[in-house]
Amino acid sequence: MQPKKQLRLTPPRILVLGFALTILIGAVLLSLPIVVEGKEPIPFLDALFTATSAVCVTGLVVHDTANTFSTFGEVVIMLLIQVGGLGFMGFATLFALLLGKRVGVKERLILREAYHQDRVGGVVQLVKYIVVIFGVFEGLGALILATRFIPLFGWKKGIYFSVFHSISAFNNAGFDLNGAFGDYSSLTPFVNDPVISLTIPALFIIGGLGFVVIVELFQYRWTRRISLHTKLVLLTTGILVAAGSFGILLIEWGNPRTLGGLSFRDTVVAAFFQGVTPRTAGFNTLDLAGMYPATQFLIILLMFVGASPGSTGGGIKTTTFITMLLAVWSMIRGQDDVVSFRRTIPHHQVYRALTVTVLSMTLVIIVTMLLTITESSDVFHVFFESVSAFGTVGLSLGVTPDLSPPGRILVLITMFIGRLGPMTVAYAVAKGMIKPPIRHPEEKPLIG
Amino acid sequence: MQPKKQLRLTPPRILVLGFALTILIGAVLLSLPIVVEGKEPIPFLDALFTATSAVCVTGLVVHDTANTFSTFGEVVIMLLIQVGGLGFMGFATLFALLLGKRVGVKERLILREAYHQDRVGGVVQLVKYIVVIFGVFEGLGALILATRFIPLFGWKKGIYFSVFHSISAFNNAGFDLNGAFGDYSSLTPFVNDPVISLTIPALFIIGGLGFVVIVELFQYRWTRRISLHTKLVLLTTGILVAAGSFGILLIEWGNPRTLGGLSFRDTVVAAFFQGVTPRTAGFNTLDLAGMYPATQFLIILLMFVGASPGSTGGGIKTTTFITMLLAVWSMIRGQDDVVSFRRTIPHHQVYRALTVTVLSMTLVIIVTMLLTITESSDVFHVFFESVSAFGTVGLSLGVTPDLSPPGRILVLITMFIGRLGPMTVAYAVAKGMIKPPIRHPEEKPLIG
Ligand SMILES: [K+]
Ligand SMILES: [K+]
Repeated sequence: MQPKKQLRLTPPRILVLGFALTILIGAVLLSLPIVVEGKEPIPFLDALFTATSAVCVTGLVVHDTANTFSTFGEVVIMLLIQVGGLGFMGFATLFALLLGKRVGVKERLILREAYHQDRVGGVVQLVKYIVVIFGVFEGLGALILATRFIPLFGWKKGIYFSVFHSISAFNNAGFDLNGAFGDYSSLTPFVNDPVISLTIPALFIIGGLGFVVIVELFQYRWTRRISLHTKLVLLTTGILVAAGSFGILLIEWGNPRTLGGLSFRDTVVAAFFQGVTPRTAGFNTLDLAGMYPATQFLIILLMFVGASPGSTGGGIKTTTFITMLLAVWSMIRGQDDVVSFRRTIPHHQVYRALTVTVLSMTLVIIVTMLLTITESSDVFHVFFESVSAFGTVGLSLGVTPDLSPPGRILVLITMFIGRLGPMTVAYAVAKGMIKPPIRHPEEKPLIG
Repeated sequence: MQPKKQLRLTPPRILVLGFALTILIGAVLLSLPIVVEGKEPIPFLDALFTATSAVCVTGLVVHDTANTFSTFGEVVIMLLIQVGGLGFMGFATLFALLLGKRVGVKERLILREAYHQDRVGGVVQLVKYIVVIFGVFEGLGALILATRFIPLFGWKKGIYFSVFHSISAFNNAGFDLNGAFGDYSSLTPFVNDPVISLTIPALFIIGGLGFVVIVELFQYRWTRRISLHTKLVLLTTGILVAAGSFGILLIEWGNPRTLGGLSFRDTVVAAFFQGVTPRTAGFNTLDLAGMYPATQFLIILLMFVGASPGSTGGGIKTTTFITMLLAVWSMIRGQDDVVSFRRTIPHHQVYRALTVTVLSMTLVIIVTMLLTITESSDVFHVFFESVSAFGTVGLSLGVTPDLSPPGRILVLITMFIGRLGPMTVAYAVAKGMIKPPIRHPEEKPLIG
């Protein structure tokens, strides 16, 4: 005899609403005349798209950032990226702590959902660590970038560029200010600058490991313990970085539109850069449209997997991917347990991995099908676009600026779901947990 | 202290070798001068491709069947389809039974693997049933088709056409003899003949249910029991038939190159036909290349799922698909058991479904990537082609006849793996089952 259900504000629902609100505030700011270089403010839908892209740290843009927005507008975007990357709950907690307020149980439950944690214990401590991590890495990144940008652009612009790109990189946002070299040029002008071509990936790879992993690695000298989670994240990140870089090197070797024209050193650096950036960073130093289709396909796969849980990156996540592969491997070897590093991964986690993947694929497929109807672009290009939006990657084969209004809304929704994770959105939409009243006898259907 | 391993002929390996041998014999026959209409025999690679397509009941063709092959050649193809559809082990067992021989334990183990059965008991009985089912349905189908083909083509050609198309349809082979209406025209000339447009789907839908289901339905009047397997097959088949037909009706409504020019009745029949044929039959009555990309995408999804286990069709199979969806649904509802029709599906079967799907997707993705390198065709078209080959469907956006030799070999291997099932091939390649020596403690990675 339960009371009639009201619309309860469960943690997943609060997260969805919080992100939506942050985006709306951003959209209002970005539709003001003061944020653009010209006199005409951009249309509200474009402002909404840009705010979503910034808060969801995606980097897909319908207007070139540097050439459209004033410095004020760029700073707004930078702040939106920072709020989106840290997570609005992280920001709220930070303010609460600075004001000396207590963080309640309800807030801790939301934090647990926000950072994909298993337990409530230690989530406030985690937020403190996360803030320190952001400060240290974004500061360091800006310092190193400054050694290149200050000589290039002078003190004022140099420091500004260093801070903007360090924040954008560590948050895996993929926004850049290089429109002066041509609209949407991303980091292509710096393809043969190894300091920039290596500092930026270092920032987004570390940012993409997830806070839990970074904290654990820092504490290792005291704890002497590495969890299965961290081992799987490091292993999978290593595999994907290697597979991406070697794959691109192998396929694009000699392609005159990409690696063909570069020296040996630049070829290796560019292949590395382009192999790691689909893991949700979204910068590019090579012309994506000039790549062979096989490379574009490889990039789609890397974008779909994305970064690690509890990071600023999107995708189904490295642990989801490796858990599925481990389950498949066990099955082929005739073993019922999914074992990794001498630990058994519980059935429940395997099912969760399966669920995340199926929901994500369903989303990408539906969005692609709808985009083929709303857009006149090539099917493969819109497929690339929707995976990029879902993985909050921000790479594009050039479709984004030409998206129709319904197309913009579709891509915007995809970025939103991609940033929050399909499970959080599914839980927010679902009517709440229902416990099975009785257990049913087992019966096997034939499979495959 | 195990003895050194030899290459053991396990059931999966015998199945792989048996199918390969059947294909090779077919390829040798089809490269003889007597099987073609002209004087020049077709190249051996083309004969191998055609034999693979016939034995794997796919229907992708590099030469139009009617315009290239003599009647003798067509009969060879028809027999290859029959052997491939029944399965070479079914054929071998049939001969053994006709000769009064006993079927040994080893053969029963192979039959179990061949028909994706769970138990060895009853497999010989199953083969007997299967032979009867083939005879009844192919005979009935030929009779009904004859009422249309004999008036059209006269007695001799009419009966021949009826038998050929009935066998091709019930085995989900997708081969046709309508080249007289233009190369590769498939059943497009009969788009407004409801007898043909409904008999052929009836045959391939029943054939695609799988023998276990058909036998169970026939025995229902005595047993009064329907297994979970049969319920899931019927439910999923129903859902996919409805989704495919309505989807195509909805998207293609008014497309002048497909449904637009047809009367209301013909529109409905054509949408139904085109909605069910991707479920591995491979005939088409509408021009596939003229469809909107969204429809082609929908067809790719249907082809990937395919028919039911233990049928002549390919794909990951209906039960695999529905098991995954049920697992996802349970997870979102917070339930640990995967429940359907008041039965719990064991974890093991869910893992098997996951494994089949991941292996299949990996295959399709790798083949597509390689085809983008070997072929100059559009990426989306070769993606369509590789899913069609894997699902042993045989639909094509026109790529097949232009495939380069490496492309032909790639598609041929894909059809082969698609017909045998990725699990059987994986087991054939794997070194054999290894039991886990110790159980490891559980530890959860964070997922999604
Ligand atoms: K990004
Ligand atoms: K077929």
